[in-house]
Amino acid sequence: MQSEKIRVAVDAMGGDNAPDSQVRGAVLAAEERPGSLEVILVGRKALIEKHLAKSGAELSNLSVVNADDVVTMEDTPSEAFKTKPESSLNIALNLQKDKKADALISAGNTGAVLTFSTLKLGRIEGISRPTIGSIFPSWKDITMVIDVGATVDCRPNNLLEYAVMGSVYMNYIHNIDNPRIGLLSIGEEKSKGNELTFEAYKLLENSGLNFIGNVEGRDILKGTANVVVCDGFVGNVVLKLAESVLDLLKNKFRQFSEKSLWHKFRVALAYPTLKKIVQDFNYEEFGGVPLLGVNGVSIIGHGKSTPLAIKNMIFKAEETVRKQVNSKIKKILETYNK
Amino acid sequence: MQSEKIRVAVDAMGGDNAPDSQVRGAVLAAEERPGSLEVILVGRKALIEKHLAKSGAELSNLSVVNADDVVTMEDTPSEAFKTKPESSLNIALNLQKDKKADALISAGNTGAVLTFSTLKLGRIEGISRPTIGSIFPSWKDITMVIDVGATVDCRPNNLLEYAVMGSVYMNYIHNIDNPRIGLLSIGEEKSKGNELTFEAYKLLENSGLNFIGNVEGRDILKGTANVVVCDGFVGNVVLKLAESVLDLLKNKFRQFSEKSLWHKFRVALAYPTLKKIVQDFNYEEFGGVPLLGVNGVSIIGHGKSTPLAIKNMIFKAEETVRKQVNSKIKKILETYNK
Repeated sequence: MQSEKIRVAVDAMGGDNAPDSQVRGAVLAAEERPGSLEVILVGRKALIEKHLAKSGAELSNLSVVNADDVVTMEDTPSEAFKTKPESSLNIALNLQKDKKADALISAGNTGAVLTFSTLKLGRIEGISRPTIGSIFPSWKDITMVIDVGATVDCRPNNLLEYAVMGSVYMNYIHNIDNPRIGLLSIGEEKSKGNELTFEAYKLLENSGLNFIGNVEGRDILKGTANVVVCDGFVGNVVLKLAESVLDLLKNKFRQFSEKSLWHKFRVALAYPTLKKIVQDFNYEEFGGVPLLGVNGVSIIGHGKSTPLAIKNMIFKAEETVRKQVNSKIKKILETYNK
Repeated sequence: MQSEKIRVAVDAMGGDNAPDSQVRGAVLAAEERPGSLEVILVGRKALIEKHLAKSGAELSNLSVVNADDVVTMEDTPSEAFKTKPESSLNIALNLQKDKKADALISAGNTGAVLTFSTLKLGRIEGISRPTIGSIFPSWKDITMVIDVGATVDCRPNNLLEYAVMGSVYMNYIHNIDNPRIGLLSIGEEKSKGNELTFEAYKLLENSGLNFIGNVEGRDILKGTANVVVCDGFVGNVVLKLAESVLDLLKNKFRQFSEKSLWHKFRVALAYPTLKKIVQDFNYEEFGGVPLLGVNGVSIIGHGKSTPLAIKNMIFKAEETVRKQVNSKIKKILETYNK
């Protein structure tokens, strides 16, 4: 498989700027890696071809597969799964199921990507719940928080599985040797936490992973651990809070600059610096977040994904397939059941 | 009571800079409000008097009560409660119990202040769990997140009680009419959340409070709600994450400035502006956070509290007593049991 081209199906209709960003991102990716990548745009064919014509690209490693329907941001995932078999998301996953594609990327309805992928591709043996991890900037490097909303009311074994999946992902995709795993809690001591963390702590201690114990909210941005495992409820709150920090700062800068011309001048001097410094917070550059635990490859992007973000997602998908992340997860899980 | 002086007992030995910050903060408060405040420093008398002598203050509304022992940051609260009856925290609470003081402020071990206060003062009728709320900066104004760690694994009625206490506190102490109450969850829709939020939602809907429904992580800094209620596990993670944002920014500024002289120059220009803008994030200026639900007044401060922070905590304590926050909480709770 290593030398063959990796075939990435792009849900061309999912996302706020679809299909424009999707088509342009797909073109960028196909152009940059003609020898290793095949990109398949899935969606309303006439519309996609109009956008392709605009781009002027003629690429032999880029093709279009028609899908008449679209899963919208407002759709309820389970409902859409029943009623929208002709959606771009579903048809793109059919390609993967039928071995006509190796991976999916989508910037559409996150819940739908999770539901459709789980139901279409199934789960990796030994995984009870697929999960979504998200990459945070930190002092040292980057930190993955996992789960960020796929499963609320987790059981302890879910957290153990997240740790395994996060560890493999950070190891093979982000090249971190023996990733440090932290359990998100309210104090460093083993005795601090809730019912879920007490039980999960015991499982993680005996997991063979590089478990460093409990970490706290402040450790996420410090980079104390490479992988921070938590219940999807907590992780989702944490993700959305972190994403909003930049908005708050921008807003405060605006308020400050409106006070006087002198204030405006100081902000003008400060703003480019701040912008440069905090670009680490730009989640889209990480190329989407992986849906881990499904028997296939699905990469989920921000609804607002730019063409650059789409390109990076496609590259991330290729990498995830090439590095056989799933079989590595499976291998670790097998040792637990011996 | 309105015209009488309010007597605030200061745990002079609790906190990283104790008793220096405590003594200086107490002097500031007593000097500024000679007609309305009586400040009682509780701790090692000889040591405190040495610090008082250094300050040169001679104030008739400032006194010292001796306590030989100290609860440290490392002490386990329940253990310390049994073994340290002579601690400054315990003796300060005895004053309140014996009606010789109206309130306590402490920048010491938060868990110990919670445990000692609950056991010494008891709970307000109708409150099952005392709670700690914390004030966050936001786009518009400020937001209280409640609970931030007093109780993990909450039950739905705990969240209802937090909403009542937070509403009264924001109304009377922060002068917000009919505070908007939000339930922290993973989506705005009623159908998004976990088992706890589904049940709590029903209670809040029928509470008579100004309940605006679910809010998300991003809403905390946006100020969508004035009071955000959540389980203490989630609230604690959120608080510590938010507190760490400034550290990350400072760290990134430092890294950036170390690149070259030109970078250093730009940071020098940017830093004061940024500092001014983000001073809202300075939690200490809010004058500590209230421990709500106990039958008395306890204000908890950061371990690192400065004299200014201590002064503000003393003022906050006075205000909480004068405005009879507890009896207002009790009154709302009574309507639920009719």
